[in-house]
Amino acid sequence: MTTSIILIGFMATGKTTVGERLAAEQGLPFVDLDAVVEEAAGASIPALFAERGEEAFRALETEALERVLAGPPAVIATGGGTPCVRDQIARMREAGLVVALTAPLDEVFARAGGAAERPLLARSRRDVEALYRQRLPTYRRAHVAVETTGREPPMVAALIARAHERARALGPDRLREAAFVSLDDATYPIAVSRGALADFGELARGTLGSDCERVGLVCDDHVAPLYADRAERALAREGFVVTRVSVPTGESSKCAAELERICRELAGAGLDRRSAVVTLGGGVVGDLGGFAAAVLYRGVRVVHAPTTLLAMVDAAIGGKTGINLPEGKNLVGAFWQPSLVACDPDVLATLPARELRAAFGELVKYGLLGGDDLYERIEALAPAIGRGEAPEGIDEVIRRCAALKAWVVGRDERETTGERALLNLGHTVGHAIEAATGYEQFLHGEAVALGLVAACGVSARAGACGPELERRVVETLRAAGLDADVRPWLARADVLAHLGVDKKRSGGALSFVTVGGIGEPGLTRLDLDDLRTHLRAL
Amino acid sequence: MTTSIILIGFMATGKTTVGERLAAEQGLPFVDLDAVVEEAAGASIPALFAERGEEAFRALETEALERVLAGPPAVIATGGGTPCVRDQIARMREAGLVVALTAPLDEVFARAGGAAERPLLARSRRDVEALYRQRLPTYRRAHVAVETTGREPPMVAALIARAHERARALGPDRLREAAFVSLDDATYPIAVSRGALADFGELARGTLGSDCERVGLVCDDHVAPLYADRAERALAREGFVVTRVSVPTGESSKCAAELERICRELAGAGLDRRSAVVTLGGGVVGDLGGFAAAVLYRGVRVVHAPTTLLAMVDAAIGGKTGINLPEGKNLVGAFWQPSLVACDPDVLATLPARELRAAFGELVKYGLLGGDDLYERIEALAPAIGRGEAPEGIDEVIRRCAALKAWVVGRDERETTGERALLNLGHTVGHAIEAATGYEQFLHGEAVALGLVAACGVSARAGACGPELERRVVETLRAAGLDADVRPWLARADVLAHLGVDKKRSGGALSFVTVGGIGEPGLTRLDLDDLRTHLRAL
Repeated sequence: MTTSIILIGFMATGKTTVGERLAAEQGLPFVDLDAVVEEAAGASIPALFAERGEEAFRALETEALERVLAGPPAVIATGGGTPCVRDQIARMREAGLVVALTAPLDEVFARAGGAAERPLLARSRRDVEALYRQRLPTYRRAHVAVETTGREPPMVAALIARAHERARALGPDRLREAAFVSLDDATYPIAVSRGALADFGELARGTLGSDCERVGLVCDDHVAPLYADRAERALAREGFVVTRVSVPTGESSKCAAELERICRELAGAGLDRRSAVVTLGGGVVGDLGGFAAAVLYRGVRVVHAPTTLLAMVDAAIGGKTGINLPEGKNLVGAFWQPSLVACDPDVLATLPARELRAAFGELVKYGLLGGDDLYERIEALAPAIGRGEAPEGIDEVIRRCAALKAWVVGRDERETTGERALLNLGHTVGHAIEAATGYEQFLHGEAVALGLVAACGVSARAGACGPELERRVVETLRAAGLDADVRPWLARADVLAHLGVDKKRSGGALSFVTVGGIGEPGLTRLDLDDLRTHLRAL
Repeated sequence: MTTSIILIGFMATGKTTVGERLAAEQGLPFVDLDAVVEEAAGASIPALFAERGEEAFRALETEALERVLAGPPAVIATGGGTPCVRDQIARMREAGLVVALTAPLDEVFARAGGAAERPLLARSRRDVEALYRQRLPTYRRAHVAVETTGREPPMVAALIARAHERARALGPDRLREAAFVSLDDATYPIAVSRGALADFGELARGTLGSDCERVGLVCDDHVAPLYADRAERALAREGFVVTRVSVPTGESSKCAAELERICRELAGAGLDRRSAVVTLGGGVVGDLGGFAAAVLYRGVRVVHAPTTLLAMVDAAIGGKTGINLPEGKNLVGAFWQPSLVACDPDVLATLPARELRAAFGELVKYGLLGGDDLYERIEALAPAIGRGEAPEGIDEVIRRCAALKAWVVGRDERETTGERALLNLGHTVGHAIEAATGYEQFLHGEAVALGLVAACGVSARAGACGPELERRVVETLRAAGLDADVRPWLARADVLAHLGVDKKRSGGALSFVTVGGIGEPGLTRLDLDDLRTHLRAL
């Protein structure tokens, strides 16, 4: 059964143009919500705004939306503000596939016509910018974001059609709980559902199709006894022949020898080009198994079933795979997007408390990137996380963090425009602390937590934000039982020496992610020596 | 200085639509050659054909072409037959960038309008097919082919613009001797010029840009003392800091251990993401070094400088990279397109005679795929190759074989449509003989030579061609000193057992490349047992 496609996004992102085309191609009716409102009101939108005010318009709009969503499947173009009113985004997500069309604000201004047809443009540029920032967190709750810059409407429509096809394969129940990554040559769902591991065979079959006979299940010695049998049974029920390869637990498995071993075992077991790799585990297993998939037979498909909180919101999404060299971490790898990411929050029950807490460091990073609503949801989890529990609210947080990562990856897969670099918030100092302590003292998320505090400090020194941001972040981290006392580390010469020696460095400077406030990250080019001075002075 | 862009191709491939758009975007005048002819003749093309015949039309067309090519730079759309008359393709290649727009014949028929405007469509479908096949070898002499199926005109224009930019970077002299691979996300030249190694720094700088400081030069212990110093000097003159990594000569270097060693040495030497790998050597070095480039820092650029005849026409083009596993050859790797392929036929002077002869097996394959003109040029080289010499005529043969491979790769990068599979002509049996003899008795090209004879035999048995094709191929191979006596091998159980165990197999059948005649390859799905029966009966 087909579902509606609901287009949301700022003005001038092409919702109507793309929507009409898509509707024709999909054989669905096209509904322009503004037109429905105008018909109901017997007046044009500008006239409605001018004569009866925004409130009255919104009331009419809500009625119209309700009517349209309750009707037969359609492609529905909504107004820029529609999803932001009365949590209408949630209602939309219940009713169909919600697609956010995105464009940078400069592009919006360049494209937008006169103020006559667009009441909002009558406001000042600064007001429009504020509105844009205010709406962004709501747009990010779409199932999928499709960037429109540099893409003609037929291409945008084709990308939406691909997401719609994947959404149909998921079914309406899972769709409500999913987000999608959309790239030129890959569209895939991130399904976050309790019990997903039990339904995993069905999910995998829906993604891999009927001609995939064999899968290689890559896991590690910690996860294997806990979940590998369950995953294997679920896969076998759908007719997959499973070859299991387990690697020793821990970062040291991200090496060339284990990579070769996995490839040899899978080739020896008769996997062919239509086969797939399934990774079941945390970041190490995902990075290693994903890289094996990228290079076996010059590339077979991969499905990630992350079993750690950190992998669910970070490593499993975005296609970065790789192994370490003695010369540095992740120096060898590939961009290889998965076909499906299936997260079952039930498995977090067996995650060691320390790993849960460490992942919380990354969650707080997403909160800082995402905005108040997300930050507050994360903040509310802190006490439970501190006790080593994964409370029910974590499902929605995982979903939103995953959607945020999907959003960013969809607009900057290879870290070329800078947007993906924002995900490095807290990582510059975090990496330096990890490296200076030989990757032994801290888990990655614990180091990121310290790095976030340092990033807030540097941002405050640079005048981007006030000192209260750092205080709030420290409080949130401590509530979850994390160490937030970064200053002793910034006094250590070895930490400062390790700054910027990773592969993102170029010349004597680096791109440092600052925060102007919750939901307001920025990228600043900083000379390495200046950064060291800032950090020492914190 | 900009050069003209000359569009060639069968009717209904969009030469005018794309040409007009491209001209506007590039700020160049657009010239429709048909319109120039019509103006000169004072009559429409259909009227010209009807009243004065094709001969008279061609004479007017030749004059018009000469005038237009001698004029200022422009985007020139030519008639479907224009390049095929009086070797006008050669004249076009002198004057600018020649771009072939391609589409499968079915697509041409679907797109073409009524016969009124297209005199050729008045002929029967069979006649048009014959014409299409007849013109194909000429179209393949374009600098670059851009497939138009599934691409809107703006995308086609964008791909041509990218090739034009690369052509400008090469300069007019090298352009005459080059071909380009054009893919959605990669466009690169294959430059075949005597002395290219001496100019290599300049070529590499033109491709890699000014922000590439370091390059890793991957070669082997045979090539290192012969050419590595020369290549390094040429690179250093252009300011590149070169790190040389040499691997032991031979297939056994295509392994995980050497791959890791290369990556470690290049990471240790301070290469960054803007750096590039340069491979200097044969297929082993290209496959291994190309794979290292594909995975180092999740991908840096690679330039191939092939030093063997085989690598120049085959391995260096098309982006297949990889290493072997004990379980099989090339089982691990990546599709990673180079940024430049620079071939210097001068280096063939030091190529061992046996390797030269073996490569001739692959050349004959290209002749069978390409058509009479190419086959005859290759045939003419046989006596010199037999003496272990690389005669002057080999430059043009390398160019045309490389262009043919570029054509095929551009239309089927990942071997999904079947066209790239045609390059496996002779390889099914060739691989089986290599495998049965433990990859020790034969060089790859020697085994392919035997495989070609078997493919001709199977094709004749299937009624696709007569027995004279096999006789001619045997004669050509023997003239170059190659063993063409395949029958003893087909009687061996171990050879037949090794059929189809490579990674292209699926189920109990394989795709076998047959030949209907020179220039007429075809793909046949054959049950493995049936194929064995055919081969035994030859």
